[in-house]
Amino acid sequence: MKTKPVFVLNGPTLNLLGKREPHIYGRVTLKDIEKMVKARAKELSLGIDFRQSAREGELIEWILEARDKASGIIINAAAYSHTSIAILDALKAAELPVIEVHLSNIYKREAFRHHSHVSAAADGVIVGFGALGYVMAVDAMAALCASRSETQ
Amino acid sequence: MKTKPVFVLNGPTLNLLGKREPHIYGRVTLKDIEKMVKARAKELSLGIDFRQSAREGELIEWILEARDKASGIIINAAAYSHTSIAILDALKAAELPVIEVHLSNIYKREAFRHHSHVSAAADGVIVGFGALGYVMAVDAMAALCASRSETQ
Amino acid sequence: MKTKPVFVLNGPTLNLLGKREPHIYGRVTLKDIEKMVKARAKELSLGIDFRQSAREGELIEWILEARDKASGIIINAAAYSHTSIAILDALKAAELPVIEVHLSNIYKREAFRHHSHVSAAADGVIVGFGALGYVMAVDAMAALCASRSETQ
Amino acid sequence: MKTKPVFVLNGPTLNLLGKREPHIYGRVTLKDIEKMVKARAKELSLGIDFRQSAREGELIEWILEARDKASGIIINAAAYSHTSIAILDALKAAELPVIEVHLSNIYKREAFRHHSHVSAAADGVIVGFGALGYVMAVDAMAALCASRSETQ
Amino acid sequence: MKTKPVFVLNGPTLNLLGKREPHIYGRVTLKDIEKMVKARAKELSLGIDFRQSAREGELIEWILEARDKASGIIINAAAYSHTSIAILDALKAAELPVIEVHLSNIYKREAFRHHSHVSAAADGVIVGFGALGYVMAVDAMAALCASRSETQ
Amino acid sequence: MKTKPVFVLNGPTLNLLGKREPHIYGRVTLKDIEKMVKARAKELSLGIDFRQSAREGELIEWILEARDKASGIIINAAAYSHTSIAILDALKAAELPVIEVHLSNIYKREAFRHHSHVSAAADGVIVGFGALGYVMAVDAMAALCASRSETQ
Amino acid sequence: MKTKPVFVLNGPTLNLLGKREPHIYGRVTLKDIEKMVKARAKELSLGIDFRQSAREGELIEWILEARDKASGIIINAAAYSHTSIAILDALKAAELPVIEVHLSNIYKREAFRHHSHVSAAADGVIVGFGALGYVMAVDAMAALCASRSETQ
Amino acid sequence: MKTKPVFVLNGPTLNLLGKREPHIYGRVTLKDIEKMVKARAKELSLGIDFRQSAREGELIEWILEARDKASGIIINAAAYSHTSIAILDALKAAELPVIEVHLSNIYKREAFRHHSHVSAAADGVIVGFGALGYVMAVDAMAALCASRSETQ
Amino acid sequence: MKTKPVFVLNGPTLNLLGKREPHIYGRVTLKDIEKMVKARAKELSLGIDFRQSAREGELIEWILEARDKASGIIINAAAYSHTSIAILDALKAAELPVIEVHLSNIYKREAFRHHSHVSAAADGVIVGFGALGYVMAVDAMAALCASRSETQ
Amino acid sequence: MKTKPVFVLNGPTLNLLGKREPHIYGRVTLKDIEKMVKARAKELSLGIDFRQSAREGELIEWILEARDKASGIIINAAAYSHTSIAILDALKAAELPVIEVHLSNIYKREAFRHHSHVSAAADGVIVGFGALGYVMAVDAMAALCASRSETQ
Amino acid sequence: MKTKPVFVLNGPTLNLLGKREPHIYGRVTLKDIEKMVKARAKELSLGIDFRQSAREGELIEWILEARDKASGIIINAAAYSHTSIAILDALKAAELPVIEVHLSNIYKREAFRHHSHVSAAADGVIVGFGALGYVMAVDAMAALCASRSETQ
Amino acid sequence: MKTKPVFVLNGPTLNLLGKREPHIYGRVTLKDIEKMVKARAKELSLGIDFRQSAREGELIEWILEARDKASGIIINAAAYSHTSIAILDALKAAELPVIEVHLSNIYKREAFRHHSHVSAAADGVIVGFGALGYVMAVDAMAALCASRSETQ
Repeated sequence: MKTKPVFVLNGPTLNLLGKREPHIYGRVTLKDIEKMVKARAKELSLGIDFRQSAREGELIEWILEARDKASGIIINAAAYSHTSIAILDALKAAELPVIEVHLSNIYKREAFRHHSHVSAAADGVIVGFGALGYVMAVDAMAALCASRSETQ
Repeated sequence: MKTKPVFVLNGPTLNLLGKREPHIYGRVTLKDIEKMVKARAKELSLGIDFRQSAREGELIEWILEARDKASGIIINAAAYSHTSIAILDALKAAELPVIEVHLSNIYKREAFRHHSHVSAAADGVIVGFGALGYVMAVDAMAALCASRSETQ
Repeated sequence: MKTKPVFVLNGPTLNLLGKREPHIYGRVTLKDIEKMVKARAKELSLGIDFRQSAREGELIEWILEARDKASGIIINAAAYSHTSIAILDALKAAELPVIEVHLSNIYKREAFRHHSHVSAAADGVIVGFGALGYVMAVDAMAALCASRSETQ
Repeated sequence: MKTKPVFVLNGPTLNLLGKREPHIYGRVTLKDIEKMVKARAKELSLGIDFRQSAREGELIEWILEARDKASGIIINAAAYSHTSIAILDALKAAELPVIEVHLSNIYKREAFRHHSHVSAAADGVIVGFGALGYVMAVDAMAALCASRSETQ
Repeated sequence: MKTKPVFVLNGPTLNLLGKREPHIYGRVTLKDIEKMVKARAKELSLGIDFRQSAREGELIEWILEARDKASGIIINAAAYSHTSIAILDALKAAELPVIEVHLSNIYKREAFRHHSHVSAAADGVIVGFGALGYVMAVDAMAALCASRSETQ
Repeated sequence: MKTKPVFVLNGPTLNLLGKREPHIYGRVTLKDIEKMVKARAKELSLGIDFRQSAREGELIEWILEARDKASGIIINAAAYSHTSIAILDALKAAELPVIEVHLSNIYKREAFRHHSHVSAAADGVIVGFGALGYVMAVDAMAALCASRSETQ
Repeated sequence: MKTKPVFVLNGPTLNLLGKREPHIYGRVTLKDIEKMVKARAKELSLGIDFRQSAREGELIEWILEARDKASGIIINAAAYSHTSIAILDALKAAELPVIEVHLSNIYKREAFRHHSHVSAAADGVIVGFGALGYVMAVDAMAALCASRSETQ
Repeated sequence: MKTKPVFVLNGPTLNLLGKREPHIYGRVTLKDIEKMVKARAKELSLGIDFRQSAREGELIEWILEARDKASGIIINAAAYSHTSIAILDALKAAELPVIEVHLSNIYKREAFRHHSHVSAAADGVIVGFGALGYVMAVDAMAALCASRSETQ
Repeated sequence: MKTKPVFVLNGPTLNLLGKREPHIYGRVTLKDIEKMVKARAKELSLGIDFRQSAREGELIEWILEARDKASGIIINAAAYSHTSIAILDALKAAELPVIEVHLSNIYKREAFRHHSHVSAAADGVIVGFGALGYVMAVDAMAALCASRSETQ
Repeated sequence: MKTKPVFVLNGPTLNLLGKREPHIYGRVTLKDIEKMVKARAKELSLGIDFRQSAREGELIEWILEARDKASGIIINAAAYSHTSIAILDALKAAELPVIEVHLSNIYKREAFRHHSHVSAAADGVIVGFGALGYVMAVDAMAALCASRSETQ
Repeated sequence: MKTKPVFVLNGPTLNLLGKREPHIYGRVTLKDIEKMVKARAKELSLGIDFRQSAREGELIEWILEARDKASGIIINAAAYSHTSIAILDALKAAELPVIEVHLSNIYKREAFRHHSHVSAAADGVIVGFGALGYVMAVDAMAALCASRSETQ
Repeated sequence: MKTKPVFVLNGPTLNLLGKREPHIYGRVTLKDIEKMVKARAKELSLGIDFRQSAREGELIEWILEARDKASGIIINAAAYSHTSIAILDALKAAELPVIEVHLSNIYKREAFRHHSHVSAAADGVIVGFGALGYVMAVDAMAALCASRSETQ
């Protein structure tokens, strides 16, 4: 299981990071985050498969693909977090370690962003740390995978 | 109308049947269900067009396609049942007999699974009988189509 | 266990079937349904004990009687489905296969008919197929009983 | 910014306009609406890019594409209006004038159609005027774009 | 239809009228009300069949019996008004003029008494006039029956 | 107190009775109702002051005027019944017998019509009997006034 | 008042105690509880009238019968606790000391079991002590009756 | 019907337009809007009767007056939109084409402004376009009246 | 700004103070309160314009009149506090210091009196002190006006 | 385990028992209850550690102290019952038999007193018996401890 | 009773007044408020015992202490106002005049600050006047105490 | 600001970690976590002040103390997270970087644990990673403090 990469899946509109509303989201792009994630993963000898899609169905297909091809899933499902039971079901079916990331603190925003279906399928949740949250997720995934292989 | 097939449409994650959590869902795969459905349909001289997709939009396109090409729709929209008003609208627009199927008893599960938008567009609903539910739906569809052609 | 009959229990006002509002409920009477059910059951070598009552307490007594005397329960609790926790408790206490049937599609009707306490105690639910739903329930009960005796 | 077209985006099932339930929706097709919209736009020297999709993800991609390629968005997201926070987020990220259109008066229909996520991202909302609503939206968009370029 | 009596049906605990809490309900007994009702009915050449039961099922059976044997139903379902969808269904199935009566003003009491399922099946509702309400109901029933026979 | 008239107060849009939607509300006008009410009141030696207003404030002023000049209030506050706490407070301040009347059965209509603030200030409520309801209210008011003067 | 017995009334499905799900409810039968209750009552010189019924109406009749024939009521209304306003009204009309008992801790179970209409009519409530709860209720009833006769 | 004017009715506080909070509402006054409306109406050969009132009752009286004297109603009921069932009833009773206008986008404001009773009585709704919305309403009213007279 | 008076506006039914239910509201009349208010205002060199109306529209007109003619508003909107978004909007448009007063402690009364739209537009709220609350409001208004003129 | 005492923990304001509102709570003080509890415990050879605090944190510390030093907990958390998830967590962490007591019948009081977090952590609940409830709790605790030591 | 002081009790975080967010709360410290309160009290010959605590339990103990040692309570419970039923119970048990004060207008802030348990135990409530509110409370307390001693 | 330590604050029952329910919470004690936190902090040249309390008031006092003495706050408020507006207010008043930690995934537990008042005052939230979450919080705090001092 060690040699399988971690899937890092990003939901709708995240491809605009760094361009839209830089006073809020900063100037870091999704490309930048991908580089930070891969750099840290390399230090920890983890592989990374980094993807983005605006399509709920494609995200689900990737999650099910991860079941066979990945050692864990880091997911920022963006707006789908709050509405997609289908992603929740896919994550449960994947039977892998799952870490949920959100760039902004969703609990400080509109009420309809306070609940995430993804959280109900995640081992851990990291919210509000911006790009740093992805790196923290890589660290935590390394630890989760290590403890899993120990107990097996 | 007789010679048009029945569309049997399956939603997200159902392609994993038989693999994931076999202690819950059993070892029957979606392929197996397709065979059972086609076998029974054959006995009843019905054609079957059996499809699966994780993509809400694709399911909608198939439903609208059914409007012209099918004599009825059997649908297990899985998680989309609970969230998709778009599927509800498509089913109403299809103006065909519709039967909703769920493998597990959704009324015994989490509260957010108790309501199905599909039910509001279906003639009948079959819940909790596992793979057998699909075969029951074929039987019922045959009866529905027969009574429709009688009254027309 | 094979030789015990299946109890088919019908709730309040169902005795008026065929007489009241025939444009909605059709002209099939509860007597007609009983005959259809018994005919199909005979083909499957099942016995049927078919009853109707407007009294919640009597329905509960029959369910508890079924615990000893029946191999399964098919129940259309009509309006009590939506209000009777007592029937829910009795069905759980019966520890038998239970199939819930409704003639009309309750999910298309008033909001207070969308929830059924019976569903929480049923193995499977069949909704909206009219009299045919009872025959489908007999088929499904035969399958449920067969699979039960296999696993025991 | 003047020379960029207005994107007119249409959601699921709208491709069936004119065919389904003509007693409700009339015999005007989406093709007819496109022609009406383009005719009026021409009078106002606006370009129009008219599209339809049943896929939430594709609609989101078009909205983000509009960010660079369009001067404004007229959107009838149909059923997705009521469920898609992802479309809401995309519209906000587009940072363009947005006008929401609905053919029928959604406030007279089922309660789950009374709320639209799109409205929270729109400058203006036009509801219940049928095909005419699209033409009104083109008029209003011309005015919005004019006042924007004035203030910039 | 003229010669059929009006059924006056009384629900649980009403047999205690006049005995319990006389400072609230007064000293008028259900027997007294029966006499008042019959006296007024006689003046109007109406027959009265006056009954009381604590049993929901028995009330339902009487309502269905009324379908064939009565020209109208006056009903004070007491506590069952607030909980019994089964009585609602029976009253609808009876297809007769229905008048609902309550002795006390239920809208001034606990919130769970503000809603009555019976009201949704009644032609008219008379609340808060004590025993007089029954006599008013007899007057109104006479008028309802008269206008019905006129329009038929 | 005997010689003071009963105020019969009518709320907004009731002046259109008989003209609008006659298939629903019939052809009886508010003028006709006034005549019926006065005729019956005369038989019972009651005076009647019959008024209508679309203005909440004017209705409140009349209710407070009744405190000194009337022996009781019969009120059909129409739409204000559901929204006006101010009318509720005025009726309580009037300290007179109050009877609420509605022409149609509000409990069969939209949910926002099921609750009436007036009911919380009324002695009795008469709903669904059309113009007859006003006459019943006059009868009941005569009885209420009689029993009041007895107990004083 | 001393010589009248205490009524101990048991609701639906309690007659199955000891037989159904013994891992949850234990092997104590309702017969056993009756014996324990009578033994303790004897020590306290109280008479006991111990009954069980699945019929809401019968339970109501017994409660009203208690008004004349009993010195107090111990009641485990089982599922009817959560739905029966009619039992609430009957208990209030009985004007006797009332103690509510539940075998299991209903506050740890499904949300619809957390509210009991019986509690609103009871002097005291004993929940979760199994058969022992009945004996505690007898002790408490003896104390209640003693303090009542003192204050009278 | 052609020669009757369109009533343009404005609710409370709209007389302050242009004066209060000009950074939000701009410097356009209600007088300015009246001029714009009349100019456009003249082009379309429509008459306009333009009024404003802070009084719910006066607005209702005008709506009922419109029934006889107007060919359609354009209404911005301001705060009464969210609270007045009486205006809803009056608009239904008017049996005329009705267009609702709001200056600001009420769906972006406080939750209590998201629901409008007027919307349930309107043919179409125009929200968020400022003064322009009134002109759009005149255009749409001309079209509505034209199509009405065609179908009659 | 100093020489403009403070408007003290009183809503429906307050003109009955001292007459109705003196055991609750005491024997102080609105006239008495006016005197107390004016006496204290005189000490503080404030002018007072004291008014009462049962008409929501008139209260709104006075509030808008205050915009030009008053230095502040003290308002007891009585029942309209809980229902009138129109008064809320008018108070916001007035752009003056606003103090809300209630005679009784509305937070101890029915739930529908706990929320006041006026509070959302007020600088300060004084509840439950009876007539004294008005005098406290005058004191506070003097302080508010003083601090305003300081900061300007 | 036998020799460890039972902790009897009392929440805020219970130290005022007997002094405040004696017409409601009687003249029994907490000191009196302590004596009654200790007397009964002595008969049953149980030790008692009886404490009271207005401080949520101190109650939690005592509950955790009980984990090591007590054989069971009897707790009347008073107002904290309805708000303290922290006490719930502490009781679960204590892993001891827990009995909840309330002097008055909380289910007859304000709605916010109907739910108790303590109930979700208690074995049994005794409500409404006044001081006697504590003695009943001692009896029940003796039985619980006895049955525990048997099964271990 | 005259010579007892008034307790002025302040809840959590109020000790930071004047230091935190001075642009919102101003530069007045709690010490300053204490001085203002004592100055005014001296003029009115009232004693003041001014305290602050972050501890709910300590506030409760002070309230109960006030029962014997104070003539009235002025309380700003800050955040505990919205969550503490225990403080509500303590205030009721104190059986003293109680005035609630809040510095900011809580009805303009987050929804969870709109409800105060303290209000249900207070004679009067003063909200939104900043430090001045405390002085107003002292004035009102003097009046309350005066009227109490008069009626005793 | 560099030399000030980070406060790591722990709420009720966390002192039992490692002892209670080790199958759920593991065998790591709070002492162990303190060591892990300090080891990592040392690597990052951060000081740590690690505390635990069951007392809401003490936690608040520590948070306010942090305002002057700490460079940031890491807080696991345990059960108080869900109920304490007072802690929310204190955290806001502290005006420091705040990171919230929870050992278990609260979004998978009872509904009343899904909402945390602390989240509304935190920069970031880390949930479900057990003891590791504290170490992640130290890493993130180092980054937060670094970026703060950069921007200042």
